[in-house]
Amino acid sequence: MTNLDKLIQQFERFPGIGARQAKRFAFHILTLPPEDVEELARLISTLPLSVTECARCHRFFSAHSPTETHCSICGDPNRDHTKLMVVERDSDIVALERAGLYDGLYFVLGGTVPLLQNADTGKLRGSALKATVSGLAAAGLTEIILGFSVNPDGENTSRFVEQLLRDTLHGQAVTMSQLGRGLSTGSELEYADPETLKSALQNRH
Amino acid sequence: MTNLDKLIQQFERFPGIGARQAKRFAFHILTLPPEDVEELARLISTLPLSVTECARCHRFFSAHSPTETHCSICGDPNRDHTKLMVVERDSDIVALERAGLYDGLYFVLGGTVPLLQNADTGKLRGSALKATVSGLAAAGLTEIILGFSVNPDGENTSRFVEQLLRDTLHGQAVTMSQLGRGLSTGSELEYADPETLKSALQNRH
Amino acid sequence: MTNLDKLIQQFERFPGIGARQAKRFAFHILTLPPEDVEELARLISTLPLSVTECARCHRFFSAHSPTETHCSICGDPNRDHTKLMVVERDSDIVALERAGLYDGLYFVLGGTVPLLQNADTGKLRGSALKATVSGLAAAGLTEIILGFSVNPDGENTSRFVEQLLRDTLHGQAVTMSQLGRGLSTGSELEYADPETLKSALQNRH
Amino acid sequence: MTNLDKLIQQFERFPGIGARQAKRFAFHILTLPPEDVEELARLISTLPLSVTECARCHRFFSAHSPTETHCSICGDPNRDHTKLMVVERDSDIVALERAGLYDGLYFVLGGTVPLLQNADTGKLRGSALKATVSGLAAAGLTEIILGFSVNPDGENTSRFVEQLLRDTLHGQAVTMSQLGRGLSTGSELEYADPETLKSALQNRH
Repeated sequence: MTNLDKLIQQFERFPGIGARQAKRFAFHILTLPPEDVEELARLISTLPLSVTECARCHRFFSAHSPTETHCSICGDPNRDHTKLMVVERDSDIVALERAGLYDGLYFVLGGTVPLLQNADTGKLRGSALKATVSGLAAAGLTEIILGFSVNPDGENTSRFVEQLLRDTLHGQAVTMSQLGRGLSTGSELEYADPETLKSALQNRH
Repeated sequence: MTNLDKLIQQFERFPGIGARQAKRFAFHILTLPPEDVEELARLISTLPLSVTECARCHRFFSAHSPTETHCSICGDPNRDHTKLMVVERDSDIVALERAGLYDGLYFVLGGTVPLLQNADTGKLRGSALKATVSGLAAAGLTEIILGFSVNPDGENTSRFVEQLLRDTLHGQAVTMSQLGRGLSTGSELEYADPETLKSALQNRH
Repeated sequence: MTNLDKLIQQFERFPGIGARQAKRFAFHILTLPPEDVEELARLISTLPLSVTECARCHRFFSAHSPTETHCSICGDPNRDHTKLMVVERDSDIVALERAGLYDGLYFVLGGTVPLLQNADTGKLRGSALKATVSGLAAAGLTEIILGFSVNPDGENTSRFVEQLLRDTLHGQAVTMSQLGRGLSTGSELEYADPETLKSALQNRH
Repeated sequence: MTNLDKLIQQFERFPGIGARQAKRFAFHILTLPPEDVEELARLISTLPLSVTECARCHRFFSAHSPTETHCSICGDPNRDHTKLMVVERDSDIVALERAGLYDGLYFVLGGTVPLLQNADTGKLRGSALKATVSGLAAAGLTEIILGFSVNPDGENTSRFVEQLLRDTLHGQAVTMSQLGRGLSTGSELEYADPETLKSALQNRH
C-alpha cells in the first residue's frame, strides 16, 4: 500500500467521510502550496500538546500555560457551581454556550451507551464522572442535568449515568433532571410523535 | 380547453400536486374500470352531503343522521369540557387523538394568519371561535390551549387568537396556554436552536 | 366505512399518493365551493366519454366528434409513417412532442414487463401492438424504435417486444432500434456508471 | 487564534467541509492514540514527496523511485498512444479505469473554465496540454477526446480546449471528439430533457 493509499485510509476514519471524499481530501492536499502542507501536518502533530483536557469537565481547551489544568468554564468563579450538566460531546457545549442560557458547569461523558448495552465499553469517562460529582457534591452541588440526545441511545445513556452515580449520590441532596421535551422549533402538530405531543401538553404554559 | 385539460387543472389545485402529477391522475382514472370511475365521481359529488361540519368545533365528520350537528368528540359527555384546544387543521386532531393524550375539546380554526398579516383574511373561523368560546365559558371552560405549529406563522396565529378573544374572555376565569416547547423526539443538543434549548432547560424535570 | 373513508381509500390508489395526502385531498374537496365539487365529479364521471383511445397508437386524446378514431399524430399525413416508437406511457409522448425532435408515429404499450417476468401479465397492449405493426408494415414501415426507460424493467420490456414481434416482422424489411445511451445532461464522468461510460465512448462524435 | 482554531480553519478549506464538520475533525484527532496522530501528520507531510505528478498526463501517482517520471498508464507500451482523453480531475480517470473500457492516454486539465470566463485563470494546465499534445502528435496521435461533464462549465471548457489547441493542431491529422450523449442508466423518457432526447434519437442503434 502506497503512502497515498494509507493517507486516504486515515481520512476514511474521519467522522462522516467515505472513500470518495477521502480521496478528494488527498488530492486537495496535493494542490496546496508546500508551506500549507507543512503547516497542516504541524498543527495535527502538535494538536494533542496544544490542547488540554480539562481536569474537571474533560472538555478540550487550549491552555495558555502548561500549568493550566481547568478550562475557562470550570475556572470561572461566576458560573453556578451548584449545577452540572452531563453531555455527550464537546460540540454540545459549543451549542449551549452559543445560546448563552446556561450558567452552570458541564461534564463531557465522551459518547453514549448504545441501546443494547447496559455498561460502559471503556470509552466513556464513567469513573472520571464519579470523581467530578464527588468533588462538586462536597462543594455544594444540588443538581445534575442529563443533557443527552432524545433518542434510544440518549435515553439508555441517561439510565446508565443514573445507575453509575447511585452510590456516589447516596445520602446527598443532589437531584437528577432531564432536559424538557416538547415541540421544538419547526414542529408541526400533525407530524409530531405521541411522546413529543405528551410533553407538549404537560409542559404547556 | 378539453374536458381532459379541465380535469388536469382541477387536480393541479389539490394540495401538493404539480402539473405532472395532475396529468398522471387523469391517466390513472382512464385506466380504471367504468364502475370505479362512477364510484369516485359519486363519492366526490356526495362528500359535502355525507360530511357535516361540527357546529361547535367545526371539524368535519360523517353524520349518521341529518339531525346530528355535533361530532363524536363534542358530543361525548366524558370529554373534559373545561379545556379547549384551538388547532389549525382537521389533521392536527387526527394526530392528537391517535396519541390518545388529550381529553378536552377542540376548535378547528381553518388555517393560520401569515406572519406579515395581523388580521384574518376571511378564511379563518374567527367569529365562530368567539361564539364557541362564549358558549363554553358560560358552561365552565377554564383553559384555552393554542395548539399551533412552532414557526413564525403559528406564533402569529397565537397572537391573533389572543387579541380576537380578549373581549370575549374579559372578566372570565379562563387562562390561555401554549403547548410546551423543548427537545422533540430525535433532537440532538448540538443541532438544537437557542429557543428550543431555552425551553428544554426551563422545562427540565 | 363512511363515504369519507371510502373516498380517502380511492385517493390512496392514485399514483404516488399515501394515506396522509389522500386525507388532505378529501379535506381539500370539503373546502371547495359546491359548484367546484360538482364540476370535479362531472369531469371525472365523463372523462372516459370525452377521451378516446386512438385506434392505432392507443394514446388517449379528446375527440372532437364521436366518429374520430385516430389521434392528431396518427391522423397527420405529414408525420413520417416509416418510423414507429413504442413507449411505456402517454406521458412519454408528451415529453417527446414537447422536445419537437421526432416526427414518426408512436405506440403506447401501457406499461413495462417487470424484470422477473418474461410474459405480459395481460395489462400490456401486446396484441394491439402486433396489429398496428402489421398494418404499418404493409404501408411502408421501416423502423421500430424501442423507447423504454434505461433500467432493468425497461430492458426486459425491450426483450419482450422483440420476441412478441418476431413472427410479425419475419421477412419484413423492418429494423428494430434502441434509443442511444450516453452521458445525459448533468452527468459527471466521475459518477457515471460503466455502462453509460461505454456508450459515451462508443458514441463519441 | 489558538492552534486548535488554526487547524479547524485548515479543515474548513477541505472540499465539501463546513465549520461544524471541521470542528468534528479536530475533535476526532484528539481522540486518536498518539501514534495515529503522528502517522497522520507524517503521511500528510510526506505526501508531496511520495506522490509524483506524471510528466505527461499530470495525474498524481506514487513513484517507486525518484527517477520515475511517468505514471503507469503513460508508461504502458500496450496503451493506445493514438488517443488522448482530456479530463477535469484525477478522479475522472479512476472512474474510467475502473470501468476498463478505454485503452488510450489521458491528460488531467486540473479543472474547468467557468461559463462566463473564456480564458484560463492560471489554474488549468493549458500550456502543459499544448506540450503533451505536440509531443504525442509527432508520435502518431490521431484523436483527442474531450471528456468533460455535461453541464455549462464542461461545455465551456470544451470550447476553451478547442481554441487552445487550434494552432498546435493546425496541419495535423488529429480529430477532436466529444463523449456521446444520450439516456444514461436510470433515465426515464418522461423526465429527460430535450438535449438528451435529441442525442438518444440520433444515437439510436
